[in-house]
Amino acid sequence: MNIYQNLWNKAIKIIPGGNGLLSKRPQRFSPNLWPIYFKRAKDIYIWDLNNKRYTDMSIMGIGTSMLGYANNKIDNEVKKIISKGINTTLNSVEEYQLAKKILKIDKFAHKVKFARSGGEAVLIGVRIARSFNNKTKIAFSGYHGWHDWYLAANLKKKTNLNNHLIKNLSPIGVPKELKNSNIPINFNDITDLKRKFSLNKFAAFVVEPGRFNKMSKEFAKEINKICNKKNVCLIVDEITCGWRSNLGGLYKKIGLKPDIVIYGKALGNGYAISSIVGKEKYMKFANKSFISSTAWTERIGFAAAINTIKNLEKKNYNNIRILGKKIKNKWSISAEKNKISIEINDYDEIPSFRFMYKKKNEILETAFTNFYLKYNILASNSVYLSFSHNEKKIKKYLDLLDDAFKYVKNTLIGKNKINSNNIKKFNY
Amino acid sequence: MNIYQNLWNKAIKIIPGGNGLLSKRPQRFSPNLWPIYFKRAKDIYIWDLNNKRYTDMSIMGIGTSMLGYANNKIDNEVKKIISKGINTTLNSVEEYQLAKKILKIDKFAHKVKFARSGGEAVLIGVRIARSFNNKTKIAFSGYHGWHDWYLAANLKKKTNLNNHLIKNLSPIGVPKELKNSNIPINFNDITDLKRKFSLNKFAAFVVEPGRFNKMSKEFAKEINKICNKKNVCLIVDEITCGWRSNLGGLYKKIGLKPDIVIYGKALGNGYAISSIVGKEKYMKFANKSFISSTAWTERIGFAAAINTIKNLEKKNYNNIRILGKKIKNKWSISAEKNKISIEINDYDEIPSFRFMYKKKNEILETAFTNFYLKYNILASNSVYLSFSHNEKKIKKYLDLLDDAFKYVKNTLIGKNKINSNNIKKFNY
Repeated sequence: MNIYQNLWNKAIKIIPGGNGLLSKRPQRFSPNLWPIYFKRAKDIYIWDLNNKRYTDMSIMGIGTSMLGYANNKIDNEVKKIISKGINTTLNSVEEYQLAKKILKIDKFAHKVKFARSGGEAVLIGVRIARSFNNKTKIAFSGYHGWHDWYLAANLKKKTNLNNHLIKNLSPIGVPKELKNSNIPINFNDITDLKRKFSLNKFAAFVVEPGRFNKMSKEFAKEINKICNKKNVCLIVDEITCGWRSNLGGLYKKIGLKPDIVIYGKALGNGYAISSIVGKEKYMKFANKSFISSTAWTERIGFAAAINTIKNLEKKNYNNIRILGKKIKNKWSISAEKNKISIEINDYDEIPSFRFMYKKKNEILETAFTNFYLKYNILASNSVYLSFSHNEKKIKKYLDLLDDAFKYVKNTLIGKNKINSNNIKKFNY
Repeated sequence: MNIYQNLWNKAIKIIPGGNGLLSKRPQRFSPNLWPIYFKRAKDIYIWDLNNKRYTDMSIMGIGTSMLGYANNKIDNEVKKIISKGINTTLNSVEEYQLAKKILKIDKFAHKVKFARSGGEAVLIGVRIARSFNNKTKIAFSGYHGWHDWYLAANLKKKTNLNNHLIKNLSPIGVPKELKNSNIPINFNDITDLKRKFSLNKFAAFVVEPGRFNKMSKEFAKEINKICNKKNVCLIVDEITCGWRSNLGGLYKKIGLKPDIVIYGKALGNGYAISSIVGKEKYMKFANKSFISSTAWTERIGFAAAINTIKNLEKKNYNNIRILGKKIKNKWSISAEKNKISIEINDYDEIPSFRFMYKKKNEILETAFTNFYLKYNILASNSVYLSFSHNEKKIKKYLDLLDDAFKYVKNTLIGKNKINSNNIKKFNY
């Protein structure tokens, strides 16, 4: 047993699931080969407990680090703030400065509220919408976290959330009283949207502007129309998509017209900060309803986000898209060369592919990851690109793609064997 | 208008309520004189935007900073961690190390889960208990944050939460379906406890071990008995009390036997970190139920908490109590000398007093605060003592107490006038 697995086995005994985030658990990649723990990280490189250096061509801190790990420009400002005290009896000017900065980018909005976790911020959005509309029911599309308002969907039918990222989420512990409190709407499905809106009265529609694919402009247009007509608060959950395609949310690119936007992850380049950005008519309810927490006023998050945005403002997002297209193009060529059938997404900033072998997909993804681990590259079927990625740094990854898909092919035809215990698990 | 009020007036236009925490809003102290914003802080001192130095004899970062503001020992370790990267695709060893450290202190417990905000951590505790017991209903006593499970109490009766810290909290935006989902129990009231437990079946009892006063040992004993007998998960919310009287929770001092303990605030000495610490039979449900968030795995919080605990381990909590007793004694003498009637709490670690003039209490507290502001001291009717407070540093505060209560007396008899707009507000 290697050093990480030894530690992980100890961790799962004293931490439920071994850590606080499903997406960072080794079974999501390659249960017995994934390095699990890091000692340090810089740019797109991560050193494991054995000081082995890996290049991150996978989830890049689950999408948090658009400006690379341990970015000096941000970190130096945070360290200065730390030396001056971070959480006192008085307030942080940075909270106001960050709000002002965000409102310059989200011009539709008038007010900003901050929290720390992403799911927590969506929950605040839901509370605001319910306050405004004096209704409970929420429509949603996409993945929006662990809270009752979202998991309640599976109280009615255990598979209601299956098309919204994570399969078979258990609603255990969610009050049964919330059974009919939300309705899933299929992504990019205008018919489903119209049907569900005709059958229900919603306080809000919570929606991700992209996941595997981006939202279609047609779907966005229908959402705008129907939310406006029915006075339903349109909450765009930009936790995964925000700050990856442009400053602020992806909603701008696809023509969505939010009432409230939620940011998390990339907003702080790894530091824990989330925000709720919205129109006055809704945001005034953020103070009529009681929504308050000590941890939200600690100023590292504000300082990190201010400096993250400042540095993102200097970047050219086209570079991300060009690199994404290049990766997708090479996937396509290498898969075809090896006669491996894959589906590639239309979201250049988070290039992703899916194998088309149903029940065999898990074993093939494991093979893909295992192949790259031999070359000290962390690889999965999604690449959360950052401004630290560039052609030179990912050359080895691209050069190895033909061999990687060959390895996948050999796994598919049984020439490589993977023990069933060592296969990644998609599901929760 | 001074520099802080000018800024605050701008802030309330773009941030609901002006900031993220009710307890840091100037109307809670002295609306037009309170300095509102800080530039830097160190030890028990805070510099405002005009570089005026104040001594903090009030809420000390609302109880977060037991080891003083900008504590070098903790901050240096955090800065080291920042240089090595804080949030990557792989996991932080510090998450495991902190869990191990806490379990050495909370010997009743087997597993630990981490979050960032305090209310968020209590909500996780509630989810776990509801998962275990397959019931919705929660009993509670004390203040437990902004979440639906708690505010639902006021759906039935607008004043249900009035005895539990903040008066007239609005349940707007809380699903009406949760109307009968929780029951308040009066603090230290065994009759009420027994009655409510005989009338309801609870998933959990969420309780603060102290607030103005400490929980009585008799009440604690009855809670243990009744929770054990009825298989109700006893969740002790130590967000305010934890790490102030001893390592870990106040529950140890009063004989409470928790199933789950919640920590926040002081655990990270100002850094945002909270935790859920509990018995295996409950904590295993933290992984059966889906509870996961990216921000929880960023490692600043773990590093801060590990080093906070390490430094608290070297301290003598008796020093806090001795200082608390001294302050309370001097309050008592000075109030009596000026014929001001006050009630003093029995909680030496957070010495607090209440004026006994009902509707005039707000104006008298404002007077007390205003008096001390003239001497560059932040003072309210509670002192969240830290290990940075000592007799020498608080001498000026103690020496001025006679004059402070004289000023209060003069306000009571109308010799000092305070404009009604400038009076602090207790309520939300």
